[in-house]
Amino acid sequence: MSDLAFGGRLAAAFAQHGQLCVGIDPHPFLLDEWGLPDSAAGLREFGLRVVEATAGRAGILKPQVAFFERHGSAGYSALEQILDRARQANLLVIADVKRGDLGTSVEAYGQAWLTPGGALEADAMTISAYQGLGSIAGPIALAHATGKGLFVLSATSNPEAATIQTARVATGEYAGETVAAAIVKGVNAINRAAARPVGSLGVVLGATVSADDYGISLEELAGVPATPVLAPGFGFQGATFAEVRPRFGASAPFTVVAISRGVLSAGPDRVSEAISRAAGEVSECLA
Amino acid sequence: MSDLAFGGRLAAAFAQHGQLCVGIDPHPFLLDEWGLPDSAAGLREFGLRVVEATAGRAGILKPQVAFFERHGSAGYSALEQILDRARQANLLVIADVKRGDLGTSVEAYGQAWLTPGGALEADAMTISAYQGLGSIAGPIALAHATGKGLFVLSATSNPEAATIQTARVATGEYAGETVAAAIVKGVNAINRAAARPVGSLGVVLGATVSADDYGISLEELAGVPATPVLAPGFGFQGATFAEVRPRFGASAPFTVVAISRGVLSAGPDRVSEAISRAAGEVSECLA
Repeated sequence: MSDLAFGGRLAAAFAQHGQLCVGIDPHPFLLDEWGLPDSAAGLREFGLRVVEATAGRAGILKPQVAFFERHGSAGYSALEQILDRARQANLLVIADVKRGDLGTSVEAYGQAWLTPGGALEADAMTISAYQGLGSIAGPIALAHATGKGLFVLSATSNPEAATIQTARVATGEYAGETVAAAIVKGVNAINRAAARPVGSLGVVLGATVSADDYGISLEELAGVPATPVLAPGFGFQGATFAEVRPRFGASAPFTVVAISRGVLSAGPDRVSEAISRAAGEVSECLA
Repeated sequence: MSDLAFGGRLAAAFAQHGQLCVGIDPHPFLLDEWGLPDSAAGLREFGLRVVEATAGRAGILKPQVAFFERHGSAGYSALEQILDRARQANLLVIADVKRGDLGTSVEAYGQAWLTPGGALEADAMTISAYQGLGSIAGPIALAHATGKGLFVLSATSNPEAATIQTARVATGEYAGETVAAAIVKGVNAINRAAARPVGSLGVVLGATVSADDYGISLEELAGVPATPVLAPGFGFQGATFAEVRPRFGASAPFTVVAISRGVLSAGPDRVSEAISRAAGEVSECLA
């Protein structure tokens, strides 16, 4: 099972294609620019074209599920077809869903996205631990059992997140840490229990935030097993690929560099070229 | 518009049917107990029966969307039919989705659940502000524009949530408050800006937690406009209806008393009787 675990597959994707992750974010304005309708059929076409443009040029896809949920069951049906095509193309898929809940409800979310053979099967999903890292124990156990991955929100790229994410934990094992750092430490501890070079449980750290501001140790993240980092915020949100190394330091080799509008706005005819160029730039910056 | 806003409709539902909210939580084990398959068809049948059993006996429904997402687009199609039936029965629906994100993504989640005429239209949705209350400004504006409501997670009913929810805010307007209290104060402030008896922006406070432990003021919640409270945790999670008044104090008249397994486990033939009894008990406890 160990060679099938998400952390290992992520490392293999990095080795083969580099660290770029292409977003599938069918904003209404992008659909319009692509000459597609703001409908489930438009989403499907958009997503299939991004899969096609990514295959062979980058190794990882990240659909932003909110844009599919916006079209209800028809949008989900489009997403299922896109996920199926991505699997056929051997692309690693991180479902950007940011789900969170407790008990059997959060277990059901894990089952939705991480069950092999399921309609919405992805390789990993993003998840929110507002209800505590303990609240997502069910999906963590499921991910370990099925060789899937999770990325837990820690320090996100939006400035208004600081109120909550820099708050200081008052009780328990992580007392005195920021909320963001407590989540990172908790995730690291879970990864350390598995004897693998790269853990299957990751964290989300925005590319526009400084780990220091949250008391997050990049060296600890890069320990063995390393905790993978999903870093949104490149391109539209302001971070450049040249910042990956100074920003993520020891953790840079384990960082998924996510870009969406920065390549998607090239339009349907030039998106593959934009993905090639971005993948090349990321690899150069991390060489 | 003011008589159509969610807060006003919630107050009207309370006046007509009391404060009980019936969960639609199609756990696999409950489907089995109800003699239904763990499939989209089983979910549909389960949900339609709960709608039928609730109509005329209680005023509010809360589908737990995780159990529908577990079945992908087919599960969402079942949910759409259940939501449609609930609207026809004039029931108020709170979609328990706990979505959260930032920017255009969280806007898309708001549009998915709060757009009049949309496939997944509900009256209100639960939402997570792990990325900051400011990150959900889009859905808040949408709710105000469309007469819909939001319930923001504050202090939830699971013990492992305390690490994050009791953390102390270090910066900004709510420095020194717990994360849970900062969210409550932020929500109160937004409601105060609208001249209505009951606000359309609520908070989730678990029935098993003490507001005092989080520094949350129930009197402030009950100000004008009052901030509605969604309180899960009754029945299976341990809280009894008799605790609503001592637990929620000044805020008790604005509290949505949510129960799921406690009535659903009565089975398909006795669920309507269980709902009637629970609604009566809640009204007695709050008389």
